[in-house]
Amino acid sequence: MPDPVTVEPRLSRGLRDLLPDQMLARQAVLDAARQVYETYGFVPLATPAIEYLDVLSGSAGQEVSQTIFRVVSPEEEPLGLRFDLTVPLARVIAQYPDLPRPFRRYQVSPVFRADKPGPGRFREFTQFDLDSVGAESEIADTEIIAGMCDTLAAIGAGPYQVRFSSRRILDLLLRQSEIPAEEGVDVLRVLDKLDKIGLDKVKKELTVGYVDESGDPIRGLGLASGQVERIERFLEIRADDRREVLAQLREYFSGLAEAAPELDLVERISNHLYSLGYAEDQTVLDLSIARGLAYYTGPVFEAVLLDAPQFGSVFGGGRYDDLVMRFRGERIPATGASLGVDRLLAALVHLGRAGGRKSTSQVLVARIDPALEAESLAMTYELRRAGIPAELYLGLEKSIGKQVKYADSTGIPIVLLYGSQEKERGVVTLKDMEAGRERAKKLEDRREWLAARPGQREVPRADLIAEARRMLDASEG
Amino acid sequence: MPDPVTVEPRLSRGLRDLLPDQMLARQAVLDAARQVYETYGFVPLATPAIEYLDVLSGSAGQEVSQTIFRVVSPEEEPLGLRFDLTVPLARVIAQYPDLPRPFRRYQVSPVFRADKPGPGRFREFTQFDLDSVGAESEIADTEIIAGMCDTLAAIGAGPYQVRFSSRRILDLLLRQSEIPAEEGVDVLRVLDKLDKIGLDKVKKELTVGYVDESGDPIRGLGLASGQVERIERFLEIRADDRREVLAQLREYFSGLAEAAPELDLVERISNHLYSLGYAEDQTVLDLSIARGLAYYTGPVFEAVLLDAPQFGSVFGGGRYDDLVMRFRGERIPATGASLGVDRLLAALVHLGRAGGRKSTSQVLVARIDPALEAESLAMTYELRRAGIPAELYLGLEKSIGKQVKYADSTGIPIVLLYGSQEKERGVVTLKDMEAGRERAKKLEDRREWLAARPGQREVPRADLIAEARRMLDASEG
Repeated sequence: MPDPVTVEPRLSRGLRDLLPDQMLARQAVLDAARQVYETYGFVPLATPAIEYLDVLSGSAGQEVSQTIFRVVSPEEEPLGLRFDLTVPLARVIAQYPDLPRPFRRYQVSPVFRADKPGPGRFREFTQFDLDSVGAESEIADTEIIAGMCDTLAAIGAGPYQVRFSSRRILDLLLRQSEIPAEEGVDVLRVLDKLDKIGLDKVKKELTVGYVDESGDPIRGLGLASGQVERIERFLEIRADDRREVLAQLREYFSGLAEAAPELDLVERISNHLYSLGYAEDQTVLDLSIARGLAYYTGPVFEAVLLDAPQFGSVFGGGRYDDLVMRFRGERIPATGASLGVDRLLAALVHLGRAGGRKSTSQVLVARIDPALEAESLAMTYELRRAGIPAELYLGLEKSIGKQVKYADSTGIPIVLLYGSQEKERGVVTLKDMEAGRERAKKLEDRREWLAARPGQREVPRADLIAEARRMLDASEG
Repeated sequence: MPDPVTVEPRLSRGLRDLLPDQMLARQAVLDAARQVYETYGFVPLATPAIEYLDVLSGSAGQEVSQTIFRVVSPEEEPLGLRFDLTVPLARVIAQYPDLPRPFRRYQVSPVFRADKPGPGRFREFTQFDLDSVGAESEIADTEIIAGMCDTLAAIGAGPYQVRFSSRRILDLLLRQSEIPAEEGVDVLRVLDKLDKIGLDKVKKELTVGYVDESGDPIRGLGLASGQVERIERFLEIRADDRREVLAQLREYFSGLAEAAPELDLVERISNHLYSLGYAEDQTVLDLSIARGLAYYTGPVFEAVLLDAPQFGSVFGGGRYDDLVMRFRGERIPATGASLGVDRLLAALVHLGRAGGRKSTSQVLVARIDPALEAESLAMTYELRRAGIPAELYLGLEKSIGKQVKYADSTGIPIVLLYGSQEKERGVVTLKDMEAGRERAKKLEDRREWLAARPGQREVPRADLIAEARRMLDASEG
């Protein structure tokens, strides 16, 4: 097959590039999260993107299996790309029995899903997962919640709320409402839709059913009105104070002896959070959260940004004890959470709390006079060695104006100008791009602007590092 | 298809997991490299692992195309996994014409090759690439060489050498030796084998050919003895001083007028390196390096660790001006290098200069008395908030001995013991694991060991942070 003259540069559906401004915002988030979890003593793990299909989909439903990208290897083995980081973790736990327990690991990696792409939905996206495997104590769950708070604070995400509850409290609700186990899954599936469809439709679906907007009939589950009443009373349990929520829960379940240990567990988590000083309004006991009911077996958690609730949960997880069952037929206690890196970043960019930075350089050294190139390069290295990220302009433009424009378009805050006039006087000119833009707004006349050279000033050559630092500190402050 | 009871946890050929000790070593290398290149003003880029096959293999030879893992998407488009980071960079440059020029980017990502796996050869491995696109000046090449030095120094890789030359000097050699352009590629291919097969076999292959160890005949290129003599004289040009190498080159090419600008270019790079203070023996002008001759169009560079030369080049690259030709039919000057992360790490581990760290925690807070659990958790957070990575033991073991063993096996340097006796006296016990191991070697009798409690001492509860810091500083020193 002859090569075409040119190939169209393009990506397939649901795939995207992360250009420098997106990557710089992303790295800030990932660095902050990594810093928190390393301070918590979690250790990094990496697994290959390519796994055996039976490892990936062994016990997953058909729905998940259909979203796996198949991979063709030279040996034509059945391979696919991972769709999450939990399945590979389970494989690792089963494959290396000598790993220390608890195994508290974090993993930051792309995952792949051949879903239908949509706005904000990509076929390759990043997950940041952390899990404590082999940890039974509720302290492990507490740490996940606390770590979610610390991460969101470190990122500078603004006001947030980490909501937690327990999957087992919902089991208690089923028992309390005398719903047989085989119908329980359907009831919980309906309750999980509360946020989306509202209480009225939930009640109808629990009883006689209804017809939705598109005209489709939604089958009712046929619960008795007494049962629905009990469920409704449960859903009304809400308070600003976790102690108050627990008191109401204890009253609600007072007739159910087996409720006590489950409520004690949630209370211990709540008390740990009090004593560690996490604010009541940042760590909320919220009975409405459910999070993929079939999966979790104990405490569940999710975080929302209060200024951007429309982005939904940006960080969530829970306790699940069936992790390695698929591989070893053994139950191992585990709890963890997954940071939705892409969703969180979308929310942060929406809020103006991330993004906008396009460069790492703080100083652009312009290339003015070929005879002074070696000196300009030396200054660039002087800045770098002083820890100030800097670059010598290496593009094809010779005009200073166009080099300054490059700094402007990439957001480099300072331009260093060094020509023969500067050399003669033993100075360098430092141009503060932001100050220049501000002052330029006020100078309407072009000639006036040129004369004033806004934001631009000469400093002695020997003071370069000190002056550059001073300007950068001032612009950050 | 019914699910099997258990799935065997395993990976396909040439794939591997990176367990925490490997990942911690890797992150240290990647962080150091990222720090250097961000100080140089390079910006991060990410591209998806999945690309269109024609984008990946458009102008690549059949050999490369055969190593591409095919990917099956729902739309059954022709897709594959990237095999390097240069092709995606070329696509990005062509696809986003508004990107600033120069575009100086780094990318750290896994790449995939369906090669035959072998020791140290994996089908998924990490590349750390940096490239200056749209940069014509030799300063861009100088920066790549200097950055390679700075990175290897920052990593603590031990003594290294960055060797550089220019692809065009080899072109001059062909002209000087009166070898026609159409035979030149074959001659350079043979010269590229110099390191592997030695000068004698190179000379035979350039002339009459020979029979190799396996009995296969190696065809000779039929050069005349005068031509081979000239090539041999070229290969003998060597000196500790770059100025001396250049002087010999100028003499060697004195009859060739077009040699001057090429040698001037190399001399300018050499002079920049002198004035930036890079040591002569760390930045060597070495005419024997060639690096994939067909690809590069100007300066070429590679780095070796002098204590582990058997690992070959761990970091290499060069100038190539055909980057986006495939997509836009346009020549754009570009230069860059790729850090062979896996090979470098293998060398560092071999040298004992990386690896061995299995934990991020510096302090393990043992869980001794359930009644003191809340206080132990509080101490854990006190340490974390003081920036000392710490974990409360969350495993299933109740015995202190087994908890200490967990610290030992994960390499946590300090164990904090806090039981009712400590509480009564207002102290905590800090156990220095390393000191304990050292002293324990000298105490043969078990009872004596228990009495001496090697490496273990009580400190006032209020001094916890200060004492832990002191112990950690001492063990690092």
